Amino acid sequence: MQIRIGIYGYGNLGRGVENAIRQNKDMRLVAVFTRRDPKTLSIATQGVEVVSVSDVEKYKDFIDVMIICGGSATDLPTQTPALARHFNVIDSFDTHARIPAHFESTDAAAREGGHVAMISVGWDPGMFSLNRMLAGAILPEGMDYTFWGKGVSQGHSDAVRRIEGVLDARQYTVPVQSAIDAVRGGQMPTLTTREKHTRECFVVAAEGADLSRIEKEIKEMPNYFADYDTTVHFIGEEEMKREHSELPHGGCVIRVGKTGKNGEHTQVIEYNLALDSNPEFTASVIVAYARAVVHLFREGQSGAKTVFDVPPAYLSPLSREDLMRTLL
Amino acid sequence: MQIRIGIYGYGNLGRGVENAIRQNKDMRLVAVFTRRDPKTLSIATQGVEVVSVSDVEKYKDFIDVMIICGGSATDLPTQTPALARHFNVIDSFDTHARIPAHFESTDAAAREGGHVAMISVGWDPGMFSLNRMLAGAILPEGMDYTFWGKGVSQGHSDAVRRIEGVLDARQYTVPVQSAIDAVRGGQMPTLTTREKHTRECFVVAAEGADLSRIEKEIKEMPNYFADYDTTVHFIGEEEMKREHSELPHGGCVIRVGKTGKNGEHTQVIEYNLALDSNPEFTASVIVAYARAVVHLFREGQSGAKTVFDVPPAYLSPLSREDLMRTLL
Repeated sequence: MQIRIGIYGYGNLGRGVENAIRQNKDMRLVAVFTRRDPKTLSIATQGVEVVSVSDVEKYKDFIDVMIICGGSATDLPTQTPALARHFNVIDSFDTHARIPAHFESTDAAAREGGHVAMISVGWDPGMFSLNRMLAGAILPEGMDYTFWGKGVSQGHSDAVRRIEGVLDARQYTVPVQSAIDAVRGGQMPTLTTREKHTRECFVVAAEGADLSRIEKEIKEMPNYFADYDTTVHFIGEEEMKREHSELPHGGCVIRVGKTGKNGEHTQVIEYNLALDSNPEFTASVIVAYARAVVHLFREGQSGAKTVFDVPPAYLSPLSREDLMRTLL
Repeated sequence: MQIRIGIYGYGNLGRGVENAIRQNKDMRLVAVFTRRDPKTLSIATQGVEVVSVSDVEKYKDFIDVMIICGGSATDLPTQTPALARHFNVIDSFDTHARIPAHFESTDAAAREGGHVAMISVGWDPGMFSLNRMLAGAILPEGMDYTFWGKGVSQGHSDAVRRIEGVLDARQYTVPVQSAIDAVRGGQMPTLTTREKHTRECFVVAAEGADLSRIEKEIKEMPNYFADYDTTVHFIGEEEMKREHSELPHGGCVIRVGKTGKNGEHTQVIEYNLALDSNPEFTASVIVAYARAVVHLFREGQSGAKTVFDVPPAYLSPLSREDLMRTLL
């Protein structure tokens, strides 16, 4: 019996989920739910319904897990608990500081509905969190380092776009290679924000705009850029389209630990991602965990879950025996 | 209440486990069990008993989990099932082809005794297996690559030591950097054994031994060396002691996958270990999973388990809330 999946929200992430489902033969996309007029939305998979979000409850008995593809700022804090009353759900809520609150409200709703609700799935939070956790448990005496990039930060790109005179912008977060090399080599440096990452902006400015004022506003923007060494390149619309239309990202989580009688041995664990497409990779992680959500539900569990709670085997379509035989 | 641990077998791995326990404040070493005369064995932790293996059953009620530190060839196939009748146990059984049989016999014994028995914990099998499994579930369309080293292979070192005229030997497995670079770069090459690793041997020969005969015997040894490009260095005893007395190892598991409408995006997941001490890292992994064994037992489970079965949170001494707040 295939796992029947609904996609709630059809942006970059929703389209990524749709593609990822096609790579998993034990899954089937049942419907895409949208706030737009369903008639205006054309999706990639033939024969799949596009439905208004207002009709979502009618699909209660026809969907094993709903993949919620809304944004963390305003969508997910209400969507995930609301849907968890009626469906098993999974989301990619990524506002780190608000995760405990989001967990609480989702957990209560999911328990009431008798459903499983996984939150904050993707790569950070998600696979990076899992690897930080595992490495810390294995090497209790050590230090964690997380480097992001090189990749497009959508939040930073949006921040630059809000500056007067900017027509379009793309911001790349770039890790400092010498810092990564030091950590990989087993050193445990104390690194400032500036020593870990640089920021590189590509900006299309309006004709006649004051470029030096734009550059200054970017470089001095608090939280986003002030603590970093930032480079600003002004480019044309054509070049923006040609060179910067993809959403690559990645990074690494490294733990440097000490073992032995007197900590005389250095042990380095690294988890590294190099991604051509950030939203498609996030989608692929979510789809694997969607399988686990159904597994947990079928064994009688309910409530909110995170990546820390899931037995890894539940992510795989392979049986326990096949996993042991082929992958252990 | 601290987790009470027994160590069964006191070689490199047993000593590593002893050191790792001292890094975990929720654990306490209760006793070391040995086949030798206990009076002849001095261990690093003060106040801990050294006990003959023949008295092990007397400790049934005083040990929460027994960490079995025997060898895979002859010790573990009998020790793990036998001890699983009386204790929760964990081992590092690493003969990949025999894992299913070892699982079966251990599972039956553990169920009979009502205990949890984890097998094949370490880094390969262990963390490498876990990462192969997770990466394959996330990126169903792709290829796996595992590279080992640079590190000492004890099996290959032993094989060289058995050659006539060899007094001592150390064999390093060395991954081919250009192959790693190609895979990291997102290519999916088909690599022969020879294209993935080279082997480097340091040999102390007896006085007057025929060095060219020894070198030829090494390079042509079936299974161990014949399929590899092997370099042999003859060195003195002093240099062997000075330069080759440690047991470093490591390696990486890389999955290259494709996502998107037509597989147009390449995604690369890498898990990488750089270890100063192979046995101490294996011990550190085992000790973290020993915590999980006790967790599974306390929630009422029994039978054999692998790394695929354990919710990651069970490895950590932190509460679910703290994990969420600090690591997700």
